[in-house]
Amino acid sequence: MTNGPGPRLTDLAASLPDTVPFVGPETQERTRGAPFIARLGANESLFGPSPKALAAMQRASRDIWKYGDPETYDLRHALAAHYGIGADHIVIGEGIDGLLGYLVRLLVAPGDAVVTSDGAYPTFNYHVAGFGGTLHKVPYAGDHEDPEALVSKAKEVDAKLIYLANPDNPMGSWHAAAALEKMIEDLPDGCLLALDEAYVELAPRKTAPDIAPDNPRVIRLRTFSKAYGMAGARVGYAMGATPLIRAFDKVRNHFGVNRIAQAGALAALEDQSHLRWVIGQVETSRKALNRIADANGLTALPSATNFVTMDCGLDGTFARAVLAELTKSGIFARMPFVAPQDRAIRISCGPGDAMRAFDNALPAALAKAREVL
Amino acid sequence: MTNGPGPRLTDLAASLPDTVPFVGPETQERTRGAPFIARLGANESLFGPSPKALAAMQRASRDIWKYGDPETYDLRHALAAHYGIGADHIVIGEGIDGLLGYLVRLLVAPGDAVVTSDGAYPTFNYHVAGFGGTLHKVPYAGDHEDPEALVSKAKEVDAKLIYLANPDNPMGSWHAAAALEKMIEDLPDGCLLALDEAYVELAPRKTAPDIAPDNPRVIRLRTFSKAYGMAGARVGYAMGATPLIRAFDKVRNHFGVNRIAQAGALAALEDQSHLRWVIGQVETSRKALNRIADANGLTALPSATNFVTMDCGLDGTFARAVLAELTKSGIFARMPFVAPQDRAIRISCGPGDAMRAFDNALPAALAKAREVL
Repeated sequence: MTNGPGPRLTDLAASLPDTVPFVGPETQERTRGAPFIARLGANESLFGPSPKALAAMQRASRDIWKYGDPETYDLRHALAAHYGIGADHIVIGEGIDGLLGYLVRLLVAPGDAVVTSDGAYPTFNYHVAGFGGTLHKVPYAGDHEDPEALVSKAKEVDAKLIYLANPDNPMGSWHAAAALEKMIEDLPDGCLLALDEAYVELAPRKTAPDIAPDNPRVIRLRTFSKAYGMAGARVGYAMGATPLIRAFDKVRNHFGVNRIAQAGALAALEDQSHLRWVIGQVETSRKALNRIADANGLTALPSATNFVTMDCGLDGTFARAVLAELTKSGIFARMPFVAPQDRAIRISCGPGDAMRAFDNALPAALAKAREVL
Repeated sequence: MTNGPGPRLTDLAASLPDTVPFVGPETQERTRGAPFIARLGANESLFGPSPKALAAMQRASRDIWKYGDPETYDLRHALAAHYGIGADHIVIGEGIDGLLGYLVRLLVAPGDAVVTSDGAYPTFNYHVAGFGGTLHKVPYAGDHEDPEALVSKAKEVDAKLIYLANPDNPMGSWHAAAALEKMIEDLPDGCLLALDEAYVELAPRKTAPDIAPDNPRVIRLRTFSKAYGMAGARVGYAMGATPLIRAFDKVRNHFGVNRIAQAGALAALEDQSHLRWVIGQVETSRKALNRIADANGLTALPSATNFVTMDCGLDGTFARAVLAELTKSGIFARMPFVAPQDRAIRISCGPGDAMRAFDNALPAALAKAREVL
């Protein structure tokens, strides 16, 4: 595009692939010509948001003619009070995805080294590629991300940034707080840990590490998309040392957080009893998914999240066939991308009707997948 | 931050200033300790969105637990039908602000030349600085952006990108379609015009230039924030040649557009009779603002937007004093940043009560500003 009348993309932009991290379920519905019966592929919360959050959003919709507060003051201060930290340790953005994009932009220049696990969150990898970073991947260890290997690789390649999700997606596994605290201590100077805690509200106690708010070695990312049931709102937040948090203001889309979403997230945060109810429902649903896996000869992996990853017992080819059959029968699900984790399928928790729909579809999906072996 | 335990920002990120393009009215309200009486500073639509859009948003809020469609398929196809172009000529993003950020990222590497008018939209400048571009500014000509000067400067500095808003913000001025069509013809090869048409629905007929959908020299940016009354939703869209539009998919936050906002924008687009009503209300309000300006000895500049820029007759110091007094009396307004346009204040249109609040506050604000001369 350099000599014609058209625009001249940067060398980096022109080099980027057309692939995107995820295809949405709506795209699959358009392809199959019918809506899904159960939407169990994106770890959305089928238990929904707090009714108080819903009411707050409906009220706030009347003010949609106003831009949202670019400082997201009320929500930021409510989060600060919730965690007992200063509001200057918190930045709010368009989901963890949006915040990861800003974070990578702040830290990663072309050629800079970044470390993640092979098979971890692809949207993080998308951002690293998008800013020209060099991504180094270490394998999972027994379906867990491997803190020691990540730190070791970071030292080897002089990484500016490490990504780790605790609990992990797509495997549902987790590390206890102490393991993360040790990892943070072991980080080399000048290497930041991006600790994705999207699912942490659903994890056992002592999963979230104790981190001083001004610790410059780690930024933790949380969201209203999972346990709080507001994926469509696009409200995530990052907590870290003030200099790094302030740096987001140099690059972020200041008016980017929807006004209704700000009001909804604030009301959701204030309704911790709904959150506790969701946590209980997710526990019940995980048990149901375990029973369904058992009954079908699959191995449900332990989960600290609102999904259960099920080892289908063979390889990626087989699991992909199972997933394709589930899709055909109206179940939206996803699976890990990378071997050997891609021997599994990943099913979101949900209420009884969604679990029954999956339970009804799974035996035939497995049988058909076995036929094409 | 290079040798301590903290993160290593890129040289570019570390060099960026702490300034932000706009301070939100909520921040001013927190500072003054009281809400504004009339919110006339951000050219939001005080006439509100379509009641059908409001109803659609309230319905969609029940599905907030689902991510929004990352392809924004329904809205994109409705826009395509509305304009009679293919949906692959349209990309939807988190407001024009978000899309400008992606556009600059696609085109502007450190040191690349970009051209705009001195005093035009600061958020564009923020993005250019944020990606290390070199911004060249040309003066307004008689309170109009100057297409010939912009093109001439672009040729001189080998610009990859020119920004022009038609109608213009903050002056409210506009060029007829033919002038823009000539400008696009005159663009040097490899230079893209970012044509910001945020206010175009409110402009006289034959303001929007006729541009073939596959013209690679221009990308036009439109929004649901202004005439459609949904600033808080963050839904903007860009229209251009397919290769450029597809390139956004390489860098954008795919799940970044709020689900409620997608539904609301779709319903708003479908309610063109509400849009026509708003256009009529804005015309009435512009006349009211003209009368108020006349009665107070100010010169209302002609406007093709939902605001009226009023020449206060002296310099920036005086206009800033008027604005400060208006703020004190509960009127949120803004003004041009750069001389000689900063001799003016800029007042958004609104219904009768908002106009009366401004009418009530202006004489005293002018008197007090004259006292401090």
